[in-house]
Amino acid sequence: MSDSRPIGIFDSGVGGLTVLKAIRERLPKENFLYFGDTLHFPYGEKTAETIIQYGFEIASFLNEHQIKALVIACNTASAFALKELIQKFDFPILGVIQPSAKKALAFSPRGNIAVLGTRGTIRSMSYQKTLLEMQPHSKILPIECPLLAPIVEENFTHHLAARLIMETYLEPLRNFPVECLLLGCTHYPLLLDQFRELMGNIPIVDSASCCAEELCSTLKYYQIENHNETEGEISYFVSEDPEKFQKLGKVFLKTDIEVVQKVNLCDSLILNWSFGKP
Amino acid sequence: MSDSRPIGIFDSGVGGLTVLKAIRERLPKENFLYFGDTLHFPYGEKTAETIIQYGFEIASFLNEHQIKALVIACNTASAFALKELIQKFDFPILGVIQPSAKKALAFSPRGNIAVLGTRGTIRSMSYQKTLLEMQPHSKILPIECPLLAPIVEENFTHHLAARLIMETYLEPLRNFPVECLLLGCTHYPLLLDQFRELMGNIPIVDSASCCAEELCSTLKYYQIENHNETEGEISYFVSEDPEKFQKLGKVFLKTDIEVVQKVNLCDSLILNWSFGKP
Repeated sequence: MSDSRPIGIFDSGVGGLTVLKAIRERLPKENFLYFGDTLHFPYGEKTAETIIQYGFEIASFLNEHQIKALVIACNTASAFALKELIQKFDFPILGVIQPSAKKALAFSPRGNIAVLGTRGTIRSMSYQKTLLEMQPHSKILPIECPLLAPIVEENFTHHLAARLIMETYLEPLRNFPVECLLLGCTHYPLLLDQFRELMGNIPIVDSASCCAEELCSTLKYYQIENHNETEGEISYFVSEDPEKFQKLGKVFLKTDIEVVQKVNLCDSLILNWSFGKP
Repeated sequence: MSDSRPIGIFDSGVGGLTVLKAIRERLPKENFLYFGDTLHFPYGEKTAETIIQYGFEIASFLNEHQIKALVIACNTASAFALKELIQKFDFPILGVIQPSAKKALAFSPRGNIAVLGTRGTIRSMSYQKTLLEMQPHSKILPIECPLLAPIVEENFTHHLAARLIMETYLEPLRNFPVECLLLGCTHYPLLLDQFRELMGNIPIVDSASCCAEELCSTLKYYQIENHNETEGEISYFVSEDPEKFQKLGKVFLKTDIEVVQKVNLCDSLILNWSFGKP
């Protein structure tokens, strides 16, 4: 049995490309459709209702392209829209929060976990709530790192300034018996080497690679892996400014993105709805 | 003759507070109304038409409060709305671009000026165009500094990382016979000491203090200065999230902001329009 249907991945922008990268390293034969909802970027300040609506529109678009599984590679959408999308669609759907929370707890016998994220993610409490649901005795140290995502997007990851700012953000760890560092932002895997140097032997869990591992298990479980011999293909879609996505995406993927198609989601849905009418 | 009517100042957010600060140092007896259009922040990506509409609504609101002069303490609004607002209102109106461009040229016999700003400001060409209109033989080196505004907002101005990032942004100056550095972002005056250390004897012109100097001359010219003996008052208005403005504003003003009032501009305008009807 081999299933060559693509895997859908979506994010509000380029951040989810680290998730795509982590997945592709593990599943090079799979085909992918990546959707960056750049028109609505950033999701951080929007209501749950709006995020669910965006998620539904994107998942519907990807569904029309016959995806076999969906990855919500965005923290805000994972927090707000995962349950609703699982109810509405038949294919398996994964977010970025649960897999990394589960793995962080596996590394933390006492549940002493430091969670790093954007101000929006940390204040949304999404990682903290998920960790406490899984392990009620966890002691979580949340750390807002608002400058790290801009530093990654501006390609300053290997600049000494990045390291110095990271050191400052990690200062609260001096008074916390940390067992695991959870990187709760899709941008942070690009700073993983620097985090490793700063954290010594403390395990570091990043939401991108945890999500990728979970997807491997999921495909195996549903027996929908692609056993093709050739390398899979990736198609990129955005809702706005394909050129900017192409340029910024290169920073994240470390390789060129050849083609990015702009999609008007509303048009696409209305069109299909008209076709579907009796 | 003494005129105690307030001076209106507006920006899309807190950035214009550096302009307010620069003005207040020179004109401590004046009263001020500051309006932060936080609902529509940031202005950078919006169309000229939209910015003019916002500017008109804000200037109308301030006009109802009997301002004697208006300062557009925002680069985007200065570029797009200055001419339109001057045509519509009777009080004198200043932006942040012309005053600093004029002063930078005064320091630059050959017109070799490096302009630093956000990506949006630099790509809008507003400083470059203004400088070239004033001095067609200018040689302008525009430098996008996208990380500096977040660094200021996050209060990392005195962090070594800020200095290192500034050094990187200033690298193109090695191959440019610069005569003057123009800081074309209202956030950058908070990095002025660091810029001075990095630039040695090269004059540095910042849009906030140049605008403040121009306002002094304007009040004198129209004979509308306030010669009151006591210190003037400042009232703050925002279109969204007064608490956030209060917190972030402290970073810019280096002093507490006691009261911030939230204003719904449309309501305010509709209300006045209704009252004005026969």
